[in-house]
Amino acid sequence: MRCKRMATPRIRFSEAEFARRQQAVRTAMDAKGLEILVVSDPSNMCWLTGFDAWSFYVHQCLVVSADRILWIGRGIDAASAALTTHLPAADILPYPDDFVQSTLCHPMQCVAEQIAALSGSRVGLEMDNYYFSAKAYTTLCAALPNHRFADATGLVNWQRAVKSDAEIATLRKAASVIELVYQHMREVLVPNMPQNELVAELLAAGARGADGIFGDYPAIVPLIGYGPESAACHTTWDDKPLQPGAGFFAELAGCHARYHCPISRTVYIGEPAPAYRTCESVIADCISQVADAMRPGAVLEEVAQVFYSALAKAGFEKDNRCGYSIGLSYPPDWGERTMSLRPGDRSVLQENMVFHFMPGLWFDDWGFEMSETIRVGAHGGECLAGVPQTLIVVDA
Amino acid sequence: MRCKRMATPRIRFSEAEFARRQQAVRTAMDAKGLEILVVSDPSNMCWLTGFDAWSFYVHQCLVVSADRILWIGRGIDAASAALTTHLPAADILPYPDDFVQSTLCHPMQCVAEQIAALSGSRVGLEMDNYYFSAKAYTTLCAALPNHRFADATGLVNWQRAVKSDAEIATLRKAASVIELVYQHMREVLVPNMPQNELVAELLAAGARGADGIFGDYPAIVPLIGYGPESAACHTTWDDKPLQPGAGFFAELAGCHARYHCPISRTVYIGEPAPAYRTCESVIADCISQVADAMRPGAVLEEVAQVFYSALAKAGFEKDNRCGYSIGLSYPPDWGERTMSLRPGDRSVLQENMVFHFMPGLWFDDWGFEMSETIRVGAHGGECLAGVPQTLIVVDA
Repeated sequence: MRCKRMATPRIRFSEAEFARRQQAVRTAMDAKGLEILVVSDPSNMCWLTGFDAWSFYVHQCLVVSADRILWIGRGIDAASAALTTHLPAADILPYPDDFVQSTLCHPMQCVAEQIAALSGSRVGLEMDNYYFSAKAYTTLCAALPNHRFADATGLVNWQRAVKSDAEIATLRKAASVIELVYQHMREVLVPNMPQNELVAELLAAGARGADGIFGDYPAIVPLIGYGPESAACHTTWDDKPLQPGAGFFAELAGCHARYHCPISRTVYIGEPAPAYRTCESVIADCISQVADAMRPGAVLEEVAQVFYSALAKAGFEKDNRCGYSIGLSYPPDWGERTMSLRPGDRSVLQENMVFHFMPGLWFDDWGFEMSETIRVGAHGGECLAGVPQTLIVVDA
Repeated sequence: MRCKRMATPRIRFSEAEFARRQQAVRTAMDAKGLEILVVSDPSNMCWLTGFDAWSFYVHQCLVVSADRILWIGRGIDAASAALTTHLPAADILPYPDDFVQSTLCHPMQCVAEQIAALSGSRVGLEMDNYYFSAKAYTTLCAALPNHRFADATGLVNWQRAVKSDAEIATLRKAASVIELVYQHMREVLVPNMPQNELVAELLAAGARGADGIFGDYPAIVPLIGYGPESAACHTTWDDKPLQPGAGFFAELAGCHARYHCPISRTVYIGEPAPAYRTCESVIADCISQVADAMRPGAVLEEVAQVFYSALAKAGFEKDNRCGYSIGLSYPPDWGERTMSLRPGDRSVLQENMVFHFMPGLWFDDWGFEMSETIRVGAHGGECLAGVPQTLIVVDA
């Protein structure tokens, strides 16, 4: 197995930054008594090495040991590993194409061979991260009967919680992308515009990005909930016209170099129904209180309680989490899948953690969303994007 | 657990069509001796019931038994199940939000409770389909020690292989979307355009769609490989300008109501290098030969051999599959993950199977893609989209 190094590498962070990340993961492995870690989640693969390609629809992984990181993936994707990582060519190990979506053999047999050749028998697996299937697990177990497997779900994700200065700089770029997306929405939205025509404009603005900052693809497509369908929070668009006398929410993110800044807003065509104005004022107040509470040392569930209490005082209730840690990601989720803003999460905030505060309210036949991406600053939370915290009203 | 039925259901096929699909799956379950089937792949969930939402980043599934289909998912997504399916409200079973991305409890515990209440102990699991994680599997096994589990990967996918007339009609709509995307590309592409600005135009054209046919989000974002980076086949864009004297490939799909028509083309800015013209003519000839071979009764690997032989005659080699079955899908893949055009696949073609014929060639420092979506017709394959089978040349 060989791999040609590309002439034009496309690597987004310094070798020193990747070395620091890899060291953090190895320290966490030691703490859990793991000698080897199999990393299948594409966001973890990218964070650890830079590996970036839309190749996660086939099995692929990093195998992290004390002194090496192996990339193992499909043959035709090895060129992407050479293009986007600092990994030495000898550690980029493509498997043959016969293993792709086959019922006769499984790529994890190739991974098992590589693991068997390493020293160490205590192996961590991302049992509940994306793209590590049940079959991947049973294949590894069958091929390596003398190895001991432990659940290492989230081990890498947790190392990502506190962002480096370079990551914060990238998130600020994603924030300027989403600012322009909402500005563009205000410019082009007219009554009776079909949903898909609005989405066309949002997608284009998101890819165009800002001056010198290209827009990357967000891990979630634009979510649009219109009229009574806004009771369902994860709907996508069709071609129904956005008619006067109704509201809709848009849950969107700016993305740059795989880092996300999600921001939701609610739009009303025509004079807003009073309930929308009430939510606008209640949620704007909640954002202000929650941002103020997001200080280093605060406990996450206590921050969540600030929100749930303010909401209850206003006569509303929300029986689901109101936010989560975010950063680098791939489909299907821009969340980091570690901390959630909800009762029971006793995580302690540190400076440069970043959350999507998502106080979405979904009622029986309508919904309201106004969310913010908030960085934990030394003296309180900072909303990364400057999108006005208001209901967006379009003259009918 | 309850669920309000939405006032404005958004269901894309008739009850009769869904009943026919469900019957086919139950027949396949019987043939495998399965009494219960857990369906986690969002494309299978949608095909069986219509369920459509960007909710597959959390655990969710259908549980199919002889007389019921249960939808089990996150509480806030039950409204989408009511909006997009014919399922009776009593069979839409939301789990509480505490189960979302928690390390203390797992949604499959809720699924296990429902399975335990059904008659039957032989349960099929989609062991290697998307989003059924290793942890989902071990959780079910631990919670249901007296049930017997079998691998049912692809069981539903295989029922999808031959498309109904209604599905073919939907695929034709997706084809008209991709025709307009390429037409738009020809209109707007100019030398030195940054990649992301081209992608902005492609995304917008894809969502705008055709007259009366909205564009849905494809399961894969636009893949753009420029210059030497086109050696890597699954790269996405950044902001490098598309300069004269270089080529790039675009792998794109039109999508309508979750059905895909992928089409790749290669573009050259300026007078094309001779190797690009050679590939253009060789691959156009291969498409013609392969389409002609795609008749009912043909064996898939023999069709693939038509391509590999024609390619070898022209002095080229491709050591990976050259196509796969397609249709309805969600990220991360628009493939159906059943049949592949490659040696060893002895599947027999039937009318109204649909394939993405993907004769992409990736060399050491460049690549060439020209692919087609082909329906198996009574007397040979039909390219669904009428995108000219040529290199796209932009005057420098």
